[in-house]
Order: sequence, then C-alpha cells, then structure tokens
Amino acid sequence: MVRERLAEFMMKGLVTPTGLISHGRGEAFDYLMNESTTRAAEEAERAAVAYLLNAKNPVICVNGNAAALDAQRIIELSSETDSKIEVNIFHRTEERMEALIKYMESCGAKNVLGRHPDSRIPGLSSNRALCTDEGIYSSDVILVPIEDGDRAEALVNMGKTVISVDLNPLSRTSRAATVSISDELSRALSNMIRFAKELKDDEYERKRIISKFSNADNRKETMVQICKNLRSAAEDRR
Amino acid sequence: MVRERLAEFMMKGLVTPTGLISHGRGEAFDYLMNESTTRAAEEAERAAVAYLLNAKNPVICVNGNAAALDAQRIIELSSETDSKIEVNIFHRTEERMEALIKYMESCGAKNVLGRHPDSRIPGLSSNRALCTDEGIYSSDVILVPIEDGDRAEALVNMGKTVISVDLNPLSRTSRAATVSISDELSRALSNMIRFAKELKDDEYERKRIISKFSNADNRKETMVQICKNLRSAAEDRR
Repeated sequence: MVRERLAEFMMKGLVTPTGLISHGRGEAFDYLMNESTTRAAEEAERAAVAYLLNAKNPVICVNGNAAALDAQRIIELSSETDSKIEVNIFHRTEERMEALIKYMESCGAKNVLGRHPDSRIPGLSSNRALCTDEGIYSSDVILVPIEDGDRAEALVNMGKTVISVDLNPLSRTSRAATVSISDELSRALSNMIRFAKELKDDEYERKRIISKFSNADNRKETMVQICKNLRSAAEDRR
Repeated sequence: MVRERLAEFMMKGLVTPTGLISHGRGEAFDYLMNESTTRAAEEAERAAVAYLLNAKNPVICVNGNAAALDAQRIIELSSETDSKIEVNIFHRTEERMEALIKYMESCGAKNVLGRHPDSRIPGLSSNRALCTDEGIYSSDVILVPIEDGDRAEALVNMGKTVISVDLNPLSRTSRAATVSISDELSRALSNMIRFAKELKDDEYERKRIISKFSNADNRKETMVQICKNLRSAAEDRR
C-alpha cells in the first residue's frame, strides 16, 4: 500500500525517482528491525519530543517522501509541539514546491512555510540552500524526516539541534544528527505524538530525559538489535 | 550513476516504480556488505557457474532491473556458459516485454526468448506464469537475477536448480533458491564470467565445487559477515 502510494506520488511529481530508491533502502533496514520500533528508537523519540517542546522555534521539515508517507501525523505532531512546518526539497523546482505545499494544506496544515524563501542554509550550493528566515533559518530545534546527508550536516553546522528520522542508523544523516531516530516514519510520528501529550506539562521530566540521552549509545544499541535479529533469522531459516 | 540509469529506464517504461524501491532495498544490503563481494558470495558464484556449465538447458532470466543494471555482462555470461536468455517480467505488458527484448538485442543479445510464450510456470496466477517451452519451462538450471519471491519458489517447485542474485540474504527469493548469491549484480556477473572461463574445461573441479557447496551454510556466513560490518561501523562512528 505504501509502495503504491509512493509510486502514485511519483507519477504526480511530488516524489522523485531517487526518492523511491531511498524509500527502498529504508525498507531493508525496517525489515532488519522486524518492522517494529526498537527500544532504542523509542528512547530517541522521547528525547526528540523533549527537545521539540523545549525549543524556542521548533520546525518540522517536509519533503516529498515525508509528505507521501504521513502528512496527517506530521501535522498532528506540529500542532502538539507548536512546531512550524516548512516544505524543503532536495530536487527543488517551483512546481514541486507549490504542489507539496498545496498537498500539505489540503491535508489540513496551516501556514506552511517554503513558498517564499528569503534565506540560505550556509554551506549548500545552488537552490538546495533555499529556506525561510522565519522557519528553518532561525529554528533552534529542527525535525528532518528522511533528510539528505549534506543538508543534515549543514543544519548541524549552523548549531541547531537536528532530529532525524531515518531507518538506516549508519546513514550520513543519522551520523550527523543530534538525535537520530531509526524507525519507520509513521511509527515514529505516532509515538512522538503520544510522548508530546505526556511531556507537554512536565518540564522536569523533559530535562531529565534530555540529560540522560546519549545519541552515540542509542545508535550503538540499534545496531546491536539489528545484529540480534539477523542472527536469529539466520538460525530460523536454514 | 546507477540510480540515474534506473530512473531513466523507468521513464522509458522498462523498469517499474516498485522496481526502483526494490533496488533501494538491495542498496541497503550492499552498504552492509561494504559494497564488496563477500567470501560467501564468491563461493556461491563459483558453485552457480559450475551448475550452469553442467546444465543441459541453462537459462538466464532477465527483467527490467537486471537489464538496466548490466545487460552487457548478462550477455557475456550467457555466451560463456551457453545459456539462453529469456525476458520474463513480473508486471507484464506486451509493450514492456517488447521494449526489453529490443533493448537486450540492441546490446548484442541473440535469440532472446520471451516474445511468444507457449508455456506456463505452474502455481503462478495470470500472466505472471507465462514463459516459453524452449527456455524457462524446459530449463534444468536457471539464473534469476533480482527475482520476485513467488516466482523463485514456483521455479524451485518445478524441480529446477534455481540460482538467485539478490543482495538481501533473507528475502523469499534467497531463502527459496538452490544457490543464493548475495552480491551486487554487476560484481556477481563479472566474477561469474571469470569463473566460467576457468571452469569451462574442468569437469572434475566443477563436480568438486558442487559437492562441497552448502547453500544454508553459505547464507549463514553472509549474515555473520553483515553483523561483523555493522558492529565495526558502530564502533567507528560513535
């Protein structure tokens, strides 16, 4: 079903062909995590929500794949965490920007940013750098689902707290991010919406979660989990 | 470059959108194998060639992804092992069949089968079962690069020796095949062409290789190797 939707979004020009390939890479890692949220991912999702709720100007970045996968929950998380939504795509054309913003609006998003970029992310070439001052540029905490590695690194270099959602724990994006969530996007968003409700009025708990969280340890735990699954699959399926 | 070519082949209708997603899944596993041929894969490739050279009617199956990835080496391997080439696709339309056969011919393939199917693979529904009697149906050894799980299982159930090339060692195709090669297609084909030259006139060595080969042990070794790579990546990239 997800594959059909992505193919349909590609035909409409909202997702690129390389976006489909990138989705496939994610599927492989999801398979290695038994298509369920690992304990490590859940911990990262909780830390991510604590950062978003503590932020001054939290922003959720949306590209073609993210919109195709779960626009509804992106909007819900933005409302639960008071985050802005900005459409920001790697293969930028004005048509694709407009189509994605309209799609997000048709799903109920208000004030979607990205139509009129007035700033640039330093260190990125050409129109890949374009963003809005109100959103991405001045954000302190930024959630980037399914982000390209170059851009994730550039955002980290701006001093932002970068939260990635990327099934591959070894990708450049996962390695660069402050909080690297290795989970399928819809599952990650569902959990984060729930955590946002729990943590909204609990500043003390948010502080505790952030001070306890180590992204390096968390990523290592993800890889240990993947290995366990691989080994048991190797035993089961001889 | 490979991604661009696949995108281009999709635009021309030779590769399907789900073919792009499936390529992405393979990329993820390739990444976990450090984008190089594992010792286990090399061993499987050698056994595969021994089976092809010993066969009465060896056939190489070609679909959109396989053609896009390396038509040239498929043709070379077919000539080194005296195998027939048959185009056989999952999402079958006459246009796509004709386009793929023409593409293979434009790359230099002779007598490409598939245009006039006169047999059916038992156990598959609708036109997914279509094949030629001269080729797939009567083959004793069949090489299926990037094959769908249903079809791989159906071919095994016909009693054929099925050789798969699929980067995912846990896929249904890899689990079903007689010889499961977990390697990138171009690397696998290059090695197999070399082995075919070495083994062509060495019947004794071919027998020895086949009697020594255990596909179950081989797949297990692949997964152990992936785990090693994951663990060392986890250590390196903290």
